[in-house]
Parts: sequence; C-alpha cells; structure tokens
Amino acid sequence: MNYSFIRWLVGWVLCIEAAFLLIPLGLCIAYGEPYAADYVVSILVAAAPGILMASRKPGNFAFYAREGFVATALSWIFLSLAGAMPFWISGCVQSFENALFEVVSGFTTTGASILSDVEALPRSLLFWRSFTHWIGGMGVLVFLLALLPMTGGQSILIMRAESPGPSVGKLVPRLQKTAVYLYGIYLGMTLLETAFLLGGKMDLFSALCISFGTAGTGGFGLLNDSFASYSPYVQIVVTVFMFAFGVNFNFYFYLLVRKFRSAAAMEEVRGYLFIFLTAAVLVTVNLVAQGGATLDHALLHAFFQCSSIMTTTGFSSVDFDLWPTFSKTVLICLMFVGACAGSTGGGIKVSRILMYFKSIGRELRRMIHPRSVTAVRLDGKALESRMIHSVNSWLLAYIAVFFCSMLLISVDGYDFTTNFSAVAATLNNIGPGLSLVGPTRNFGDYSGFSKVVLMFDMLAGRLEIFPMLLMLRPATWRK
Amino acid sequence: MNYSFIRWLVGWVLCIEAAFLLIPLGLCIAYGEPYAADYVVSILVAAAPGILMASRKPGNFAFYAREGFVATALSWIFLSLAGAMPFWISGCVQSFENALFEVVSGFTTTGASILSDVEALPRSLLFWRSFTHWIGGMGVLVFLLALLPMTGGQSILIMRAESPGPSVGKLVPRLQKTAVYLYGIYLGMTLLETAFLLGGKMDLFSALCISFGTAGTGGFGLLNDSFASYSPYVQIVVTVFMFAFGVNFNFYFYLLVRKFRSAAAMEEVRGYLFIFLTAAVLVTVNLVAQGGATLDHALLHAFFQCSSIMTTTGFSSVDFDLWPTFSKTVLICLMFVGACAGSTGGGIKVSRILMYFKSIGRELRRMIHPRSVTAVRLDGKALESRMIHSVNSWLLAYIAVFFCSMLLISVDGYDFTTNFSAVAATLNNIGPGLSLVGPTRNFGDYSGFSKVVLMFDMLAGRLEIFPMLLMLRPATWRK
Repeated sequence: MNYSFIRWLVGWVLCIEAAFLLIPLGLCIAYGEPYAADYVVSILVAAAPGILMASRKPGNFAFYAREGFVATALSWIFLSLAGAMPFWISGCVQSFENALFEVVSGFTTTGASILSDVEALPRSLLFWRSFTHWIGGMGVLVFLLALLPMTGGQSILIMRAESPGPSVGKLVPRLQKTAVYLYGIYLGMTLLETAFLLGGKMDLFSALCISFGTAGTGGFGLLNDSFASYSPYVQIVVTVFMFAFGVNFNFYFYLLVRKFRSAAAMEEVRGYLFIFLTAAVLVTVNLVAQGGATLDHALLHAFFQCSSIMTTTGFSSVDFDLWPTFSKTVLICLMFVGACAGSTGGGIKVSRILMYFKSIGRELRRMIHPRSVTAVRLDGKALESRMIHSVNSWLLAYIAVFFCSMLLISVDGYDFTTNFSAVAATLNNIGPGLSLVGPTRNFGDYSGFSKVVLMFDMLAGRLEIFPMLLMLRPATWRK
Repeated sequence: MNYSFIRWLVGWVLCIEAAFLLIPLGLCIAYGEPYAADYVVSILVAAAPGILMASRKPGNFAFYAREGFVATALSWIFLSLAGAMPFWISGCVQSFENALFEVVSGFTTTGASILSDVEALPRSLLFWRSFTHWIGGMGVLVFLLALLPMTGGQSILIMRAESPGPSVGKLVPRLQKTAVYLYGIYLGMTLLETAFLLGGKMDLFSALCISFGTAGTGGFGLLNDSFASYSPYVQIVVTVFMFAFGVNFNFYFYLLVRKFRSAAAMEEVRGYLFIFLTAAVLVTVNLVAQGGATLDHALLHAFFQCSSIMTTTGFSSVDFDLWPTFSKTVLICLMFVGACAGSTGGGIKVSRILMYFKSIGRELRRMIHPRSVTAVRLDGKALESRMIHSVNSWLLAYIAVFFCSMLLISVDGYDFTTNFSAVAATLNNIGPGLSLVGPTRNFGDYSGFSKVVLMFDMLAGRLEIFPMLLMLRPATWRK
C-alpha cells in the first residue's frame, strides 16, 4: 500500500478545505458575527496537518485500486472531521458528535439534520452548511484533480471511487480537463439557478445557499419549514433545477459539444424522465383523489416532492409525512431509485435500475429459451459480464449495509417506519425520512451510536458503498 | 408450447385433490357436521374437469422449461381454485375471494388468514385448512412425480419449478424414486412430531393438524391465539420440529444413507443453524434487557418465534408486535433470510444468502486485486457464472415484485409498517406480519384488489418468483 501517496492526497484535501473556510470567515466578519476567532482556529485545525502532510511529495505516484478507494474514503472522513470544527468550536452545535453528523450530512449531500432550529444559526455558518453540499456534490477529489496535474495515469481510479454511478468515464481524453469541464458545468448551472432565484426577488445570500443545496442535491435549507413558506415561483424554479442536477452530466457535455443526438439517445436520462413523470402524475392524482387537495396545489407539491426525493435532495415544500400512504410509498420507491449516475444525486441510480430490469427480462427469456444468448444492452452497447457482476454485487452490498444498519439503530427503540426511512434517507443521501425523522422532525434524538451508524451510511451512500466497506476489512490494510 | 401436456398434468392435479378431499368428507361425516353435501359438490367440482383433462393422454410428453413453469404455475392456481370450494360452498367463509385467499395461503404454506375467529370453523374444515399446508409444503407435483412414471427425462424441470431454492438436484438417479424418498422423509417426520405431541397429552386431531402446519412450515393453527395457550412442552416440541422442517432435506437423505460426513459438511445447514442461534440469543438478551422479561420466558419465546419466522412457519406463541423494536427488526431480517433450499420453508433461502455474502467478499477482493480470479464456492464446489447470474436475477425479480406489491396495496391506505410486513409475510410465505397484520390481527381488512396482489405474492414466493412472472409475460404464450 502506497501510504505516502495517501498521506499527500489527504493533506491536499485538508489544505483546500482550509481555503474554502476563508469564505465563511469573510462573511462572519462582514456580518459582524462574533465567531471570527472560531473560524481562524478551525482553519488552523485543517491547514496545519494539511500543509504538513502535503508538503512532502510521495516517493512515487504509482497507485492501484486499493489506494484509490482508501484515499477517497479517508479524504472524506478527514474532510468531515475538519469541516465540523466551526460548528463545534463556535458552540453553535453543542456536541462534537452532532457537529460531525451535520457536516457528514452536508458533504455527502444528504441534508439530514440534527438541528431543530436552523434559523438560530449565524449566517456565516448557514453559508458553510450549504457550501458543504456544493463541495460534496461534485466531489472534493474531482476538484483536486482539476487543480493538480498528477503524474501517472491512474487518477481515474480516484475519480471513479468518488463519482456516483457504476460507469464513470472520461468526457475527454485528459482527466484533468474532464474534471475542469465537470466543475465548469456545475458552476454554470449553479449560477444560473442563483440568477433565477434573484429574479424572484430573493436576496443574494439565500439565493446562493439554496442554489448550493440544489446543485449538490443536498437538502439543507435556511428555514425551519424548509421550502413551505417560499413562493410558488421559487418552488417551481427549485423543482426544475433539482431535476436538472439529477441528470447525468454527460448529457450536458453532449449539449455543450453540440452532440444533440447523443444527448437525446441517452437511455438513462430517458428512463429518469419517464420514472419522474410517472411518479409525479401518480402522486398528483392520489393527492386529489385521496388527499382532498386542489389540482394546482397537488401538481405543485407532487412535482416538487418527487423531484426533491428522486434526486435525493430532500427539500420539502410540504409535510409529506401527512400524505396518503400511496403517495408516501411512491416517494419511498423514488428514494431507492435515485438520480442518474454521473449526477450529484444519490440512491441506486437509474442506470443500475435499468440494468436490473433488463437482467430480469433476460432471465425470463433464458428460462423459455435456455440456449439463447442475449446480452444486456445499455445505450446500444452490450454490457460485459464483469460489469453486470459488479453492478449486482454492489446491490448485494447495499442491501447488506441497509439491513445491518437498520438492526443496529433499532436498539434505540424507535418504530420500524422511523428506522427504515432513517436508513433509506441516509444511505441514499436524501435527508428527511418518515415518522420521527419526517420533514418536520430531525435526527437529533438518535443515540450517539446510531448517529455513527447513520454517518457511515451517508458516507457509504455517497462513495458507492465499497470504499467504506473496504475500510472495515483488515486485509485492505495489509502490506 | 405443448398445451396438451399441460392440460393432462393439471387434470391429474385436480384428480389428486379430489381424492384428498375425501378425507375431510370422512371427518365431516364422522363428526356429524352438516357439510357432507358441500364436500361432495366440492369434490365433483375438482374431479369432473380433472378426469376430463387427464383422461386423454397428451400427443407427446416432450416438454421444455417453458412448459415446466407454466404447468407448475397453472397447477397451483387450479389447485387453489378447487381447494377453496369447501370453505365457500359451506358458507363458512362468506366471500369466494376470502375463501381463495385462505386456501392460497394454505397451499403456499404462508398461513396468512382472513379469519378473525378460527375456532368457529367446523373441525373437518380446520383439518382441510391444515392439510393444504402439508400438500403444499413438499409440493403436489412432486407427489404426482412419485405416483406417475413419466416417459421423457424432463420431469426434473417440473420438480425444479416447484421446489424451493436455487439448486434442486436428484437424490438418486431416478426422479420418481427421489420423489418417493422426499415424501417418505416428509411423512416420517410428520408422524414423529404427531407422536411427540400425543406424548404431551394432545388429542390426535390437534396433533395431526399442528404437525401438518409445522411440516409444511405453514402456520395455520387451531386456536385464535395460535400457540400462546399451549403448554411449554408443546411449544418446545414445535420449536424443534419447525427448525427441523427448515433444514435442507438432502441432509436427512445423507443421514438415511449413513453419509454422516456429507451431512455435517453441508454449508447451508451450518449457516442456517448459525443464523438461527445468533438471532435467538440476540432476541433473548434483548427481551430481558429492554423487554423486562424473565430469562426462561425470554428463552422459550425467543427460540419459538425465531424458529417460526426463520422457517417461515408463522406460528406465534406470543404477540411479538409488542416486543422491543430490536427484537422485531431481528424477526424482520429472519423473514427475508428464510429457511434452507430444499426444505419446505420459504424466504430468500440460506444458500442464496451465503452466495450473496460470498459474492460481496469476492467483489471486495477483486477491488484490491483486480486481476485475481476467485470463484464463489459452496460446499467446496466453485459455482458456475450462469448459476450466480441466475441467483442474482432471482433477487432482482424478488425486489421488483416486492416494491410493486407494496405500491399496489398502499392504495388501501394502511400504514407503511403494515404494508411492508404484509408483503414480506406473503412473499416469504410466513403468515403474520406487524402492526395491522400482526399476530393477533388478520388480512381480512385489505380490499379485494390487495388480496389478489397478496395471493400473487404468496404463489410467487412458493414457486420462486419466475413461474408467476412468466405467466404475466405475453411472449410465454406465443407458439
């Protein structure tokens, strides 16, 4: 194991985080909040070990899959530990455990909170909280790849470990350029949303924070009622942008390079749109038929909520825990489906869901014609057997983590719906669940032990399970 | 598609059922119950089309996987339709929909009931209700294979379609003999349990009915409180026999032919024992620590309930819906794990669970050593890639059916826990779930539509998903 390379990479991640922390420090001073010293200490806590670790170059840059996964998982853990400092040192969040939960939830773009009163936070911390979503959405290591020209062609392993979805490829032959493109699209769309929100007479601070939360498909908001008190205009803008950030970014790349036909042919994006529309229409009909809602109210909130849950953002325009069971069940299904691979969203991902359904279809065909050889195809290409195995193994690991987590947190004694949806909401990086962790409640009541389990789940969800599982496996650490 | 063969086979199934119905008719006359005419009509309803269909031999006995699946699924559907007659014609169950639900639940060895007052049923019907478990447990087609010498060596396809688990093999080269062996072991163990229950001063009628329910891992009992009012002796005997019927029957075959080493080496049986003991000990500790139970009470009911749920029997010695959440979550996990393949139990099956965990392990190894080639092994043998694919596809289909069912029945508006556990309890052939379908409640409140969905799930669970899915696929029926 190339430990010196991992040390160097984690060091860089901490340095970048220290630099990012200068923004809330600036805001803190500008707004005259009494926490400047706390930010300075936080920055030092990140920067001191960061500079120490990054200053000495590793003996060699040769690394393999193992180093890629471990470096990614460790980067995210250190990122969270340092990112929790401003919350904890300022005393705005009482315990370190809660501060860490909040920040893990931020970076992993989950948006599950332990705070019952968000509005009591100082504005600089609200900004940092939303900004963690933005950093976590596209990934801090992808950001690093955009900055650092790494020798050795294996950096794709790191990008793969950090990017959501089963098949991450380069957009352009050079990886650094791919990372720059991705962040460029990401920044552009974020600013576009901010502009639309400003157009709705929102102040710049709120518009930026909300755009960060949308872009990373995070879910931290600025108000205790999330999105319930915003105007329909704002809710519609956010509905559209949540959906847009859940699209595979290859789609936007194709649009940029004017390959419109390739963009339109992307099976995953078409599946994503189809599932979303079906779900939103079903919920609308159900809200009118069983929920007693008016059609315009039902349409607005059904589309908002489906977009929010499917992209795993987790904003809520309404307390959907009070919706009829059918609508809630549709949302639970969407929680698992998730957004597209190669987007900032979480969940199982539409491309995997497509592969799973195609695998079922192939098995049915094989049962009738045992000697037929039919491949599972996506975007016209036959998928390798290795790929299908790996996508299946991913699901098995996902299910194993799901049930283990549910078992572990059930010791706290909350009801089944709460525990099930708490794990679903964290492992899929959504945020709110149902019942005691519903949109109007928070995760603060869980014990410290359960919070650790749920933090693991958030990281496992964001990093696609395996990097976190590898951390628990002794063989990973052997020479 | 060889329709004439399917017709012939389904005909035989109906004839056998008519013969079986003579037993409750005899009991009805012996007990002086006023339903003899209803039984005669029921027998005619089964026998008339049965004789008509079975009398003309099919043109040829050549059939393939497709015919095997369709014949199996159709046999079970006709078996249920005819089996529901005594309940419906006698008026003991008001609607045909409820009678059918009860009998599907019986044949599939689920044990989910729509009756709120079981004790009100006449004894002959109670016998028929429990006897359906016994027929369904080992399978009516396996029974047929033991009787009918079929020309053409493809009958194994039917046995595969009807038997639980991913890898059904012949015990001995001749299939008919295998079927005879299986039913022999089955009958022997059933009589042994009956003897033990008689030893506990139980009357013969109750001892037989309970043994049928245990042997088929069914779950229909004779009392409204299931097993709560039986003596600890009876509860312990049933705990042991439920566990025993969840063991892969190959194990008993090895014992019979004195291959003790092969029996002891069966990985699935060892995994089954390990999971069972772990779960029972965890629940015992939890009941004492959080549930305030005494140790002997906790031991008795933890072992009873874990044995009942893991083998998918579904007897209850206590209202486990009132247990602490951790214990309930352990039971929910056991619901999915299920018993051994090649037993009469349902669920995912221990052998599949073992393969899934080994697949995860292999994927983790591959991530660290991408060029390593390691096979997934069970009982020392490397599993073919085709087999792993098929076991994975099965899980995908299982999950798809699970979520679709949950979505469909959620229209009725019951809470999430009820719906989730109702699907889990039917698809895994267990019986009782939690909340509104908990051990002291029943499935009677669901709408007719939801009952159809849950009947589909029971059949899909018993026949391992694919035969029922194939029925829904138009391509299956094309020439």
